[in-house]
Amino acid sequence: MRLAMIGLGRMGANIARRLMKHSHEIVAYDHSAEAVQALAAEGAAAAASLEDVAGKLSGPRIFWVMLPAGDPTEQTIETLIGLASPGDIVIDGGNSFFKDDIRRAKACAEKGLHYVDVGTSGGVWGLERGYCMMIGGDEETVALLDPIFDALAPGYGNVPRTRGRDGQDDRAERGYIHAGPAGAGHFVKMVHNGIEYGLMQAYAEGFDVLKTRASEKLPEEERFDINLPDVAEVWRRGSVISSWLLDLCADALAQDGALAQFSGRVADSGEGHWTVNAAMEQAVPVNVLSAALFARYRSRSDTTFGDKMLSAMRFGFGGHVEMPQ
Amino acid sequence: MRLAMIGLGRMGANIARRLMKHSHEIVAYDHSAEAVQALAAEGAAAAASLEDVAGKLSGPRIFWVMLPAGDPTEQTIETLIGLASPGDIVIDGGNSFFKDDIRRAKACAEKGLHYVDVGTSGGVWGLERGYCMMIGGDEETVALLDPIFDALAPGYGNVPRTRGRDGQDDRAERGYIHAGPAGAGHFVKMVHNGIEYGLMQAYAEGFDVLKTRASEKLPEEERFDINLPDVAEVWRRGSVISSWLLDLCADALAQDGALAQFSGRVADSGEGHWTVNAAMEQAVPVNVLSAALFARYRSRSDTTFGDKMLSAMRFGFGGHVEMPQ
Amino acid sequence: MRLAMIGLGRMGANIARRLMKHSHEIVAYDHSAEAVQALAAEGAAAAASLEDVAGKLSGPRIFWVMLPAGDPTEQTIETLIGLASPGDIVIDGGNSFFKDDIRRAKACAEKGLHYVDVGTSGGVWGLERGYCMMIGGDEETVALLDPIFDALAPGYGNVPRTRGRDGQDDRAERGYIHAGPAGAGHFVKMVHNGIEYGLMQAYAEGFDVLKTRASEKLPEEERFDINLPDVAEVWRRGSVISSWLLDLCADALAQDGALAQFSGRVADSGEGHWTVNAAMEQAVPVNVLSAALFARYRSRSDTTFGDKMLSAMRFGFGGHVEMPQ
Amino acid sequence: MRLAMIGLGRMGANIARRLMKHSHEIVAYDHSAEAVQALAAEGAAAAASLEDVAGKLSGPRIFWVMLPAGDPTEQTIETLIGLASPGDIVIDGGNSFFKDDIRRAKACAEKGLHYVDVGTSGGVWGLERGYCMMIGGDEETVALLDPIFDALAPGYGNVPRTRGRDGQDDRAERGYIHAGPAGAGHFVKMVHNGIEYGLMQAYAEGFDVLKTRASEKLPEEERFDINLPDVAEVWRRGSVISSWLLDLCADALAQDGALAQFSGRVADSGEGHWTVNAAMEQAVPVNVLSAALFARYRSRSDTTFGDKMLSAMRFGFGGHVEMPQ
Repeated sequence: MRLAMIGLGRMGANIARRLMKHSHEIVAYDHSAEAVQALAAEGAAAAASLEDVAGKLSGPRIFWVMLPAGDPTEQTIETLIGLASPGDIVIDGGNSFFKDDIRRAKACAEKGLHYVDVGTSGGVWGLERGYCMMIGGDEETVALLDPIFDALAPGYGNVPRTRGRDGQDDRAERGYIHAGPAGAGHFVKMVHNGIEYGLMQAYAEGFDVLKTRASEKLPEEERFDINLPDVAEVWRRGSVISSWLLDLCADALAQDGALAQFSGRVADSGEGHWTVNAAMEQAVPVNVLSAALFARYRSRSDTTFGDKMLSAMRFGFGGHVEMPQ
Repeated sequence: MRLAMIGLGRMGANIARRLMKHSHEIVAYDHSAEAVQALAAEGAAAAASLEDVAGKLSGPRIFWVMLPAGDPTEQTIETLIGLASPGDIVIDGGNSFFKDDIRRAKACAEKGLHYVDVGTSGGVWGLERGYCMMIGGDEETVALLDPIFDALAPGYGNVPRTRGRDGQDDRAERGYIHAGPAGAGHFVKMVHNGIEYGLMQAYAEGFDVLKTRASEKLPEEERFDINLPDVAEVWRRGSVISSWLLDLCADALAQDGALAQFSGRVADSGEGHWTVNAAMEQAVPVNVLSAALFARYRSRSDTTFGDKMLSAMRFGFGGHVEMPQ
Repeated sequence: MRLAMIGLGRMGANIARRLMKHSHEIVAYDHSAEAVQALAAEGAAAAASLEDVAGKLSGPRIFWVMLPAGDPTEQTIETLIGLASPGDIVIDGGNSFFKDDIRRAKACAEKGLHYVDVGTSGGVWGLERGYCMMIGGDEETVALLDPIFDALAPGYGNVPRTRGRDGQDDRAERGYIHAGPAGAGHFVKMVHNGIEYGLMQAYAEGFDVLKTRASEKLPEEERFDINLPDVAEVWRRGSVISSWLLDLCADALAQDGALAQFSGRVADSGEGHWTVNAAMEQAVPVNVLSAALFARYRSRSDTTFGDKMLSAMRFGFGGHVEMPQ
Repeated sequence: MRLAMIGLGRMGANIARRLMKHSHEIVAYDHSAEAVQALAAEGAAAAASLEDVAGKLSGPRIFWVMLPAGDPTEQTIETLIGLASPGDIVIDGGNSFFKDDIRRAKACAEKGLHYVDVGTSGGVWGLERGYCMMIGGDEETVALLDPIFDALAPGYGNVPRTRGRDGQDDRAERGYIHAGPAGAGHFVKMVHNGIEYGLMQAYAEGFDVLKTRASEKLPEEERFDINLPDVAEVWRRGSVISSWLLDLCADALAQDGALAQFSGRVADSGEGHWTVNAAMEQAVPVNVLSAALFARYRSRSDTTFGDKMLSAMRFGFGGHVEMPQ
């Protein structure tokens, strides 16, 4: 199929590359002309503007927007809605908030356009491993785009088959699902990332407990100086907690068991926050997902005003309140 | 009554003072001769050693030990068990772990001694306000010591009476309870401190949310620069969250709304930890009590190994894993 | 002053009563004619509709809306904006979300109206004790309404004065504050409720640990059967954790130490949720406030799908996966 | 090598089987004669008592104890210490608390015996996949036992190799590590299980958020009826959160997306509790690991006394306190 890739950052460019490798045709656009040229050199048709993009496709046009969530995505989609003709398809492959999808899908529908949201996981590994995709939108449009998703997905691979999948939608086994109407794709991806935060924090806390067991504050005989690279490595084999994230831990620790190059100030993208929000809308207790998010917030501050408030209270009831200056 | 106060730190000295004010006689001992002399100057009988203490009391001797939990208390009580005669009473008024009380009470019983554990709350305010006491030990011994507890307790004061207390044990209304056998006093005091941590952290988080609402990262119209001293003050009047701890917040914030003198590195004594431990023995979920404790741990580190582990994983799946050196 | 009270539920009616007691004049309106008549019998002017309300006030008219947050408040304020004249004042005394205040204040300003949001704490106790109020709006309007707030507030009372308040805004000491522009009042009230949830959960967990210490699963000598009514009572005197909420615990436990009349399914209003949301907007870790909220969610379910998922995983790695049917 | 397997439950029997498959000789003992006969039928030497076990081995004897942690393990090891001769080796392959290992290793050393603790992960899958082992004990003894561990471990398998492992201890890559002195093996295994709880709870909460998004309380357009079996399946392919535990989720959901056979009352073994304990000894914040543990506690109660306490407080400040009966 022929489609436009709008936004040629690492994710967008690699998705385009994987599609071209599978014989799809890409019209490439980015605000950086350099990024466009790079992809053109690999076989894409270069576009100089969104209008140019529209001109280089024919109906139903397929616009895959792969930009940072928020303003960049919002403005681009608004422009595309202006440019597009009935029957055209706008895909948001970024990390948008699912309620923005719902709103945009409505705006698209009013113009006769189809809106599809695609949550993708796989990071830069996706070019090679394939992308895991969670898709929202109407049935017909998602079906029409199937060759694209099929090309991007990892496929069956050598993952052992789950019992009882016979007769089930085999797209899931090939690495993509149609999760529901517009917004459902990003909703599932959002929860995926919420889980990811929780998993990461579980490993982080565990390795912290192992690491600090060497503390000299502990009685000598209860103190252990544990080889963390070896621990991460051994857990990859036959243990209940083996995972791809653990593979990454093992890799990082093998380079340096002290992780000295890392400052430990950890960013969060919106998904963890949105997942907690959704949970609150639904009255679901998510102590682990929220704690994982809050640990990241805390990692970015040396101290908090709350901590000072605690100290002030302790100072108060410890009886120093009326000490002379 | 005549009793020994062993340990004349802030708590021990003030308890002795309050007892003397209520006409009890104190034999004062501390490893610091200076501390002993200070209290002797206020009317206590000075003792030069634990043996001397024992010699200055007559049966049944009452030894009130008011020392830091752990080794100091343990060793002193061991020595007292050696010195004491059947019928004598050993009181641990410090912050001991309740299982240590249970063990020591047994050791005392084998020698015909009575062991009483007294958890006290009130900090340095106790001298003036009276001490809230939670007492463990056998019924008779606790009854025998009643004049002491009565003198130390705040009494009815001007606290509005709770409905339905007629016919109930009025010691609770005067500020002390017999909580149960040895260990029960410190157990209740331990939980008291566990709750204290939770309450403090709730205020701390709330004030943190108020404080950071002035952040320039927020949209300007949703940004508030809130006067925290005024907020703490207003909540003291008629609000659902008024409390003594809030009074302390108001006091501290009135001195300096930025709490600039505090570093925000918050210590914890054992009780928070023990409360979580007890909860786990009893399979009680205590997400708030544990989170309050962990916030203190976190306040004392600039970063954690766990945070670095998170960064390392993000580095991994962000695709930088195979970047050239 | 003369003002309208719109919404005569328990809160609205009592606020009107307290105002009348302080010689303010009330135009009373509620969709229930009965509620209007009840208040008219106590001296209020009865109004039959919002139009009637407007007709019974003269400029600048003051409309105090005291309705459930969400649609009832929204629709009433919309109607009032239509009815009101430039200079009139709309007060939302309910529990609105602060971003709704910001939006409504804009809509009011476009019509020359003033919008004031008042967060009130005190529950049904307010009629007698006075209401603690956190107010958002423009300086002049809040100043103009001062006689109203002054009448509603608890006043200095017998609360011990905080050091260092000389020369500070004494409204806080009388029980109300001007927290900032529109929305700031409800923002501070929202955080107040967030803290309230945290405080309540800290007590709840603590009493749970005390209660379950009688469990027969524990070794006999480590088991305590603690008198909870006495514990709550004693903590009210001289302890660090005394508070108004503890008074309520003591009261409830004095009636029945087993709290048998309560099912333990605990509702939450929006404020806890909104506080966590605000914290996430500001990247503030609020493990205690969120855990308190989630405990309420959890209290309302017998089980969760998450719990079933855990069981299913344990079933899986426990090796029963391939058991015959 | 020839060794005794004491305790022929699912784990012990399968470990013995895997050892025999690798040409080791097993002396089999269990308090159930039936279990002994079953293994004897597969080639083990049957023993009728611990004395008999000792008689059927020659120095240095190797006793692998594979019993439930606590009393069964404790008593058996005590008996073995009595029976064994200097140089003999006692292995505790169960889930003992690491401080019990430290104590037992001392008791063994006093008799000239060697104590080795082996934490194993892999569940019933271990017979086929091999066991992931974390080993504590002295260097020489662990080296002497190497053929046993080598046989039990999964080996390199087809797990992609971690960069930078050249020149490192390759036991980790074959599925076992020597973690440190006695206790270190069970310490690492304990943390492994602590992490496992955290990972499981992260998935559980995420699937709960997905599941409850179909709630009719949500606005219709924001409601999604998500196919959970497909979601679990798709995440197994190329996503960041793929793991063995996710494979188990996918398997369970493929059988029944509603997990109707599960009650959601989730047990916990000691390791989660001990991990939180260790973290507290080390002052490490473990909000995720503790929340995961507490969720299990909560899953086993219909309600809690804490929940009732919350209800009672709400009843109090909601003003019903003085209502007539």
